Amino acid sequence: MRVLGVDPGLTRCGVGVVEGVAGRPLTMLGVGVVRTPADAELGHRLVAVEQGIEQWLDEHQPEFVAVERVFSQHNVRTVMGTAQASAVAMLCAARRGIPVALHTPSEVKAAVTGSGRADKAQVGAMVTRLLRLSAPPKPADAADALALAICHIWRAPAQNRLQQAVALHTAKAPSKGRLA
Amino acid sequence: MRVLGVDPGLTRCGVGVVEGVAGRPLTMLGVGVVRTPADAELGHRLVAVEQGIEQWLDEHQPEFVAVERVFSQHNVRTVMGTAQASAVAMLCAARRGIPVALHTPSEVKAAVTGSGRADKAQVGAMVTRLLRLSAPPKPADAADALALAICHIWRAPAQNRLQQAVALHTAKAPSKGRLA
Repeated sequence: MRVLGVDPGLTRCGVGVVEGVAGRPLTMLGVGVVRTPADAELGHRLVAVEQGIEQWLDEHQPEFVAVERVFSQHNVRTVMGTAQASAVAMLCAARRGIPVALHTPSEVKAAVTGSGRADKAQVGAMVTRLLRLSAPPKPADAADALALAICHIWRAPAQNRLQQAVALHTAKAPSKGRLA
Repeated sequence: MRVLGVDPGLTRCGVGVVEGVAGRPLTMLGVGVVRTPADAELGHRLVAVEQGIEQWLDEHQPEFVAVERVFSQHNVRTVMGTAQASAVAMLCAARRGIPVALHTPSEVKAAVTGSGRADKAQVGAMVTRLLRLSAPPKPADAADALALAICHIWRAPAQNRLQQAVALHTAKAPSKGRLA
């Protein structure tokens, strides 16, 4: 399973590609940051994010894209840019037919450190260990993107079983079936 | 001046095209709503919004796109979808090199009704009068999109004069000049 993790942001959008399956050692295929200038017009910044994400999709051909789920209770100005950058990442993936998964920050932290309240340093340290890197990826957005990809690989089996159970249930009870 | 107004939303994205200049009667060239199913995946909804906006840009070839500026103090769930739909609209315009302007809801209300606190019905009534329509456009999102386009046409002369003044000032004082 090859996953592109995206930690969305307008100024720094972290991206990281991880390959592997749950229960086996994982491999990092690439990590980086898509940056856009803070003084550029918003529309141009979104185009730059789109071009950056497209390059990563072209180069690594991931089977899944995992994006951090954005909440609006944080800083008002930041959250808008984050929501907009995440929209561009989801759009790029969905346009290619690549399934998009959203994971909350606490899901990601819990997946890689065991605690949903872990700090940046702890996440960076575990990403470094799990991917057998020589040093923590920098900036933190890049490490977070890798953590998202790892989280998706590890959570996917459970999610697939859940989806299969739901599919089985709705197949048995067509009157309650939901549209895809 | 031909302007596409966009009242962003995932479930209903209002779109309206108005042509004219400040101080002269305005003409509506088109109005509608881009809808996406609430039970579809977010990525697919964003792709549907993109396709809808692209169709409107193709058909009407606007010189400007005016999008409602999204604030995050409103309903948390709604504002995320609104921010994401607005990102897609801005992206579509900027990709084509069409300038994007953001106007706040109160700027739009003040422009078309004289009051920044006008209600939906008042905005609808003024849009109907200003564009000489036989009835208010429905749903309200469609009327709001037209109001955005009207607001942009009316505010553009003042904004242009401001930009020219800034450009003149920075040309005279190059040491304080800002990067574009």
